[in-house]
Amino acid sequence: MTYSDPYLVISSDCHAGLPTEEYRPYLERRHHRAFDDFLAQRAARQAEMTRLGVRNEAFATRWFEEHREGLRGGWDPAQRIKELDGDGVAGEVVFPDADAVDSRNAAPFGVGLGLSGDHDPELGMAGARAHNRWLAEFCAGHPERHRGVALLPVTAEVPEVLAEIKRARESGLRALMIPAMWGGNPPYHDRRYDPVWAAAAEAGMPVLTHSGAAPRQEYGDHLGIYVTEVTWWPARPLWFLLWSGVFERHPGLRFGIAESGCWWLPNLLWFMDRLYLGAHGGRKLSPFSGLPRPPHEYLDRNVFICATNTKRRELAQRYEIGVDNILWGSDFPHPEGTWPHTRRWLRDTFHDIPVGETRRMLGLSAAEVFGFDTAALAPLAARIGPTPAELGQPADQSAVEASWARSRETGRHWLTDRDFPAMGRDV
Amino acid sequence: MTYSDPYLVISSDCHAGLPTEEYRPYLERRHHRAFDDFLAQRAARQAEMTRLGVRNEAFATRWFEEHREGLRGGWDPAQRIKELDGDGVAGEVVFPDADAVDSRNAAPFGVGLGLSGDHDPELGMAGARAHNRWLAEFCAGHPERHRGVALLPVTAEVPEVLAEIKRARESGLRALMIPAMWGGNPPYHDRRYDPVWAAAAEAGMPVLTHSGAAPRQEYGDHLGIYVTEVTWWPARPLWFLLWSGVFERHPGLRFGIAESGCWWLPNLLWFMDRLYLGAHGGRKLSPFSGLPRPPHEYLDRNVFICATNTKRRELAQRYEIGVDNILWGSDFPHPEGTWPHTRRWLRDTFHDIPVGETRRMLGLSAAEVFGFDTAALAPLAARIGPTPAELGQPADQSAVEASWARSRETGRHWLTDRDFPAMGRDV
Repeated sequence: MTYSDPYLVISSDCHAGLPTEEYRPYLERRHHRAFDDFLAQRAARQAEMTRLGVRNEAFATRWFEEHREGLRGGWDPAQRIKELDGDGVAGEVVFPDADAVDSRNAAPFGVGLGLSGDHDPELGMAGARAHNRWLAEFCAGHPERHRGVALLPVTAEVPEVLAEIKRARESGLRALMIPAMWGGNPPYHDRRYDPVWAAAAEAGMPVLTHSGAAPRQEYGDHLGIYVTEVTWWPARPLWFLLWSGVFERHPGLRFGIAESGCWWLPNLLWFMDRLYLGAHGGRKLSPFSGLPRPPHEYLDRNVFICATNTKRRELAQRYEIGVDNILWGSDFPHPEGTWPHTRRWLRDTFHDIPVGETRRMLGLSAAEVFGFDTAALAPLAARIGPTPAELGQPADQSAVEASWARSRETGRHWLTDRDFPAMGRDV
Repeated sequence: MTYSDPYLVISSDCHAGLPTEEYRPYLERRHHRAFDDFLAQRAARQAEMTRLGVRNEAFATRWFEEHREGLRGGWDPAQRIKELDGDGVAGEVVFPDADAVDSRNAAPFGVGLGLSGDHDPELGMAGARAHNRWLAEFCAGHPERHRGVALLPVTAEVPEVLAEIKRARESGLRALMIPAMWGGNPPYHDRRYDPVWAAAAEAGMPVLTHSGAAPRQEYGDHLGIYVTEVTWWPARPLWFLLWSGVFERHPGLRFGIAESGCWWLPNLLWFMDRLYLGAHGGRKLSPFSGLPRPPHEYLDRNVFICATNTKRRELAQRYEIGVDNILWGSDFPHPEGTWPHTRRWLRDTFHDIPVGETRRMLGLSAAEVFGFDTAALAPLAARIGPTPAELGQPADQSAVEASWARSRETGRHWLTDRDFPAMGRDV
């Protein structure tokens, strides 16, 4: 790889979904009546989103007018390829719910981004299967570019869950999204899920949560409360899995958290490592006898973050998070993402980040986690990928590298003899 | 104030409580029978803590043997003064539950640190009154040194809550602790609490949460899960109050979060400010019409953090948190605190922090928030307070100040034109 090679860009967080009513043929006939009821409640769901402030009428109108053609890429494979190419994105990981403004593309029975462990077990699984069937078809046209994420209502009966993992994998899907919240069901430390984690690891399918679900009934009409903590709920399963030894029992399991940023990770890791390593505050506690490794080892081996549109503040913390643990994403076609201005956005965000690290965060790490064939994508990347020069990154990287040296050398300071973090760039 | 002046040290997080059975005379007679039942369940509560790993038998035995005399300071005023003096602590803010190992000093009916909004309304209020009565007596011996925190089961009927605020204040207590979790009751954005916030502001009593409560039923026997998120629950009311406009409607209200660290605050503030200031991700959302100020303004005016034994990593983030928002605490007499080695601990932690900032964090900010009379405490501080020299801080502060200049000048970088944070010390 030389400086002038274009980037292989893989978005680890994109969305696709049919206009909801078009899921009917993918849904077993016995659920059509319940599906009609679900469609009939659409107006009520929109009203709820408007009340909470998640939906802004004026913005919605403008958004759909300005992007009519591109938004069809949410479900139309040919249009989608055009939009990905325009953004310079060679590969993508495909989550549900293409429409984050009006929920016009919600998966049946709300088992998409709002997927909660409290869904009706039968309808939840039926809705998931419907979306998964369609998604497999959607990805089949350009299998080297799409990694479809199957919806997995993991709190349903275990045999059903295992059957859907198998079915989804055989249909070509490559990852699994589980509810961020388990509702009244057993939390994810429960041993009942062990066969599920084993099957996911065996199938080579990373398990993910994605932001969306939250205890909205507690928020009244206060949008700020919702947005402030909506990223916490999908992160929460991480420490349930880690401390209960799931990553120890299933070393091949990969767990990811999507569209929740990665700004919260360094403090969490510092906190958990300190707890484990028996710092002062832990003296009175029992030791962690079932866990032979400290939290950061599980993080680096089993966990990754689909950090979506990485913020500059997050990039400053990448040596604590682990550069390889950060997977960029465009969030296409959601308005909070970078589409259709991804090239400009990448330049604004990465111009003073080292090229080698940029290659990892923009694509190579995602390729490893989700099993993209980089050789197969290379010609495409050469054609559409932005170059380091287009991102404003200088050919002579020595000054850039030097400006991050202190931060890089300090790294996870709590594992060394350094007291303080060193975040940010020396200029 | 000159370099050689000893520090006025105020611990913003200490604990006191009677051996539980001795609360009987402070409890209305009609609750004595329920109190006997509560006492009878003590063994079951200990077993539960041992199972979760919060209690370590071997450590507990050693702890009580080694500190028999000092631990009596948890409820004996004379012994307490001796322990505070030994640690160099002139003033203290007094939370409940002196025993964090065996819960031998739990407030009646568990309304101490485990206080949850789901308590029985009548017993909860009765238990709180019992502790509050005792605490007022306890503080009366040296009123200039103690600021007692009244227990306030705020989810009870509003008139009862208002009556207890009045009674507590008249008895000499100076702050209010509310449950971190509201359970099945209305969340703290609800307008039903407005009279409570108004009364607290009017009485000049800061309202606080303290770590302890958490949804333990979700954790199985996994201690790591509990410890990892037990600091999140007491912080949570902060954004419920902020986004619902409580700080706008009650400009005189002070809200604090105790023994939950302050490491989580910079990211939270950055996140909320960005959301408010309408950054990219918020485009599709409705504006915050009811909130005329950005989150950091409410934080600096209405909020403070009883950060207890501040970690070095947290001190590195103080220019984002706000130096004046960080209140140190010893956590006496809990084993996760700094007692009885506070002087050594202060030296290890603050030796390369500027003296002026140390004075704020170790005492002056707490004096303002909790209304300590610094003039009255000055002679005591002169006698027992550690000096900057004893903390290893050099008389010539220029090199220390310079080493933090970049971090201080960058401050809350998201409010300026700076992309990256600058955390840590240049040496």
